[in-house]
Amino acid sequence: MPEKAKTFMLITLGEELLLGLTRNGHLTYIGDQLRQRGITLRSNYTISDENQDIDEQFAFCWDRADVLITTGGLGPTVDDRTKEAIADALGESLVFDESILKSIEERFRQIGRPMSDNNRKQAYRPESAVAIENPNGTAPGLWLEKDGRILVMLPGPPNELQPMFENQVVPRLERLGLVDQGESYLQIRSIGIGESALETELRPLFDQYQNLAVAYCAHQGQVDCRISFQDRSEQDEELHRIGEECRRMLGADFLGYGHGSLAEIVLSQLNDRKASLSLAESFTGGQIANALTDIPGASSAFNGSIVCYSEEVKINVLGVPEETIREHTAVSEPVAKAMAIGAAKSLNSDYAISATGYAGPEGGTEEAPVGTIFLGLHSPEGTEVHRYQWKIGRLAIKRRALHTALDLLRRKLVGSK
Amino acid sequence: MPEKAKTFMLITLGEELLLGLTRNGHLTYIGDQLRQRGITLRSNYTISDENQDIDEQFAFCWDRADVLITTGGLGPTVDDRTKEAIADALGESLVFDESILKSIEERFRQIGRPMSDNNRKQAYRPESAVAIENPNGTAPGLWLEKDGRILVMLPGPPNELQPMFENQVVPRLERLGLVDQGESYLQIRSIGIGESALETELRPLFDQYQNLAVAYCAHQGQVDCRISFQDRSEQDEELHRIGEECRRMLGADFLGYGHGSLAEIVLSQLNDRKASLSLAESFTGGQIANALTDIPGASSAFNGSIVCYSEEVKINVLGVPEETIREHTAVSEPVAKAMAIGAAKSLNSDYAISATGYAGPEGGTEEAPVGTIFLGLHSPEGTEVHRYQWKIGRLAIKRRALHTALDLLRRKLVGSK
Repeated sequence: MPEKAKTFMLITLGEELLLGLTRNGHLTYIGDQLRQRGITLRSNYTISDENQDIDEQFAFCWDRADVLITTGGLGPTVDDRTKEAIADALGESLVFDESILKSIEERFRQIGRPMSDNNRKQAYRPESAVAIENPNGTAPGLWLEKDGRILVMLPGPPNELQPMFENQVVPRLERLGLVDQGESYLQIRSIGIGESALETELRPLFDQYQNLAVAYCAHQGQVDCRISFQDRSEQDEELHRIGEECRRMLGADFLGYGHGSLAEIVLSQLNDRKASLSLAESFTGGQIANALTDIPGASSAFNGSIVCYSEEVKINVLGVPEETIREHTAVSEPVAKAMAIGAAKSLNSDYAISATGYAGPEGGTEEAPVGTIFLGLHSPEGTEVHRYQWKIGRLAIKRRALHTALDLLRRKLVGSK
Repeated sequence: MPEKAKTFMLITLGEELLLGLTRNGHLTYIGDQLRQRGITLRSNYTISDENQDIDEQFAFCWDRADVLITTGGLGPTVDDRTKEAIADALGESLVFDESILKSIEERFRQIGRPMSDNNRKQAYRPESAVAIENPNGTAPGLWLEKDGRILVMLPGPPNELQPMFENQVVPRLERLGLVDQGESYLQIRSIGIGESALETELRPLFDQYQNLAVAYCAHQGQVDCRISFQDRSEQDEELHRIGEECRRMLGADFLGYGHGSLAEIVLSQLNDRKASLSLAESFTGGQIANALTDIPGASSAFNGSIVCYSEEVKINVLGVPEETIREHTAVSEPVAKAMAIGAAKSLNSDYAISATGYAGPEGGTEEAPVGTIFLGLHSPEGTEVHRYQWKIGRLAIKRRALHTALDLLRRKLVGSK
């Protein structure tokens, strides 16, 4: 363990982030990677490629950080200026590095494309920097140690940055004793209980402990509660005891420890019971299946999904009786029920979830306006349907249905233990 | 149009962002909202709820921004400290606002939950601030004008922040003439051509224009190129002429203008041709269907998807002959072909895409190791299958398959014009 946690800061460059055109996935990725190694990223600064902004932000961070990571701006095009601006700020000149040029030329040979002249720009580095190889792209990363601080410059494309970070940056940080193994806090997760109600419930327990830091985060009907002690080394068991006490107090609202997605939790419950799941998805459009299949090994419990975006598919593939649709419309309790049963039957599973509804912005009827949602749950005990009415946008409806449906199944499985 | 664009800055608070537990969706959302109104967010600062960090960052931004937006830290729990820290920094005291308390009480009545005492905290505001109503949660937003600057404080949950921003913040900014209608640049999008090659191709064209700002952004096999003139008002037509010249030069690699997703572009092409699409998704697990159904009105061209995560589903629902799987394995050219044909037939569509492969981390065979992907494309002209070998992680494989499959279909549709 490092004697004292060092300060890590992250500068993410790129106007596309500020314009909302690209998600700042680098913050999520690097924050997550560091967290897994006991480091909490201190701060993240997203700025454009303007020299003045780079200068000012770099100076601010270089003053405060032990390890400063930058992403983006190392590419071949005219708007890639990070290296130049930072070399300036460090009072270094850029030197042309023949070995970097060779790697870039080799990379172009590999992908069978001609190397255009603007790529030569990528072979320059600040004089005291060393290149970090980029097996997935042309811009190398850069590693620079100066004045007791470390600067790591990474290229913007995630498929280049991520392997470079894990395979080359982390091992260097480990060798220098700057990162640790394992997390420094316990995350307790709840679902179906509000943030303020959760705090009210847990506070008397937490108040019994001195130096216990507590933070809450609410998202998608879930509230995560992170607890940690100032002095970590002696208190891991104590954290675990507090966690178990929370689990007991929360009952079925206790979702788990750690960071696994709801999909991961449900798959693990199904595997524990050697049970299988299939889906019939109308307005969720494959989103539930997609979340489940993001988890490695999903196929051990997940059979598949019928994404039925036309009535024909509901009738022909899922076997929903045509007269049920005619009588009740496709967005109705009887159709949700028939879909869940049809999915379990045609995809041969123990459990099945169905989703039918109006996600909008168009559609809906007088009795079932946009935002009307039916979720069906088929289990060995029978088939139930839940109705919801949500006044949120299309994508939010899809997302909330994903979480609600998986939580319905989770509670059913918890109850069937 | 504002005389001179004002400086907008964004502070996003929350340790969960820095720990990589939650995506910084607020940056993407607010950046996008401002961009649509002619404003480029100048910078975004993600910091924890530590008082010292809030103080320092607030002072930095309040010195430079015309409009400063903060998100998070307005909740009821002990780690919500934004209001206190910023009031301090502004030299204001917090006052208890009875009308805010009434709204919070009303909100709890609506959702039928008891109001716990810690919610009273949310009824305090800096003395010169006014509350922004929150119809979707308990923490109101705050609007504060001081020293010619504007501070907007928004709650963290996206389902509360987003309607508040669009329905209440934007109209105020419009009334003050601080935001504009429409974007200030043209985005030209390409696919299947590298960033450096694109710049080499387009540069001679761009070099003919003075004061033309150019920025490139590469992501997922696409490269976006944004062009703008310093003086916007007189040059919209000129930008359009340059864009059309790029379109001509790029041919089938021209993806479009603007920001529509690949799914949106493909759906619009299908609608133009009154053609329908269905899918047979194995390792993509519903991701392609999910991307298509994110687009409002998708049902006009999209019939559905068979997510076949077991061989049984491939055989029974898609009609892939059992002996084809036995002879060639489920990840093979003949199975991809049979899946595409089966999807078109069982879901009754003109076009169909199939995806089968090993996304890993486990699985694969000697001839087809993890990362082996087959994408099938069925069209009225016949059925073709493409094989790929990708050395990237499970989620990256799924995502790249999504883009590759939709681009295969897009090129087929462009060619069939």
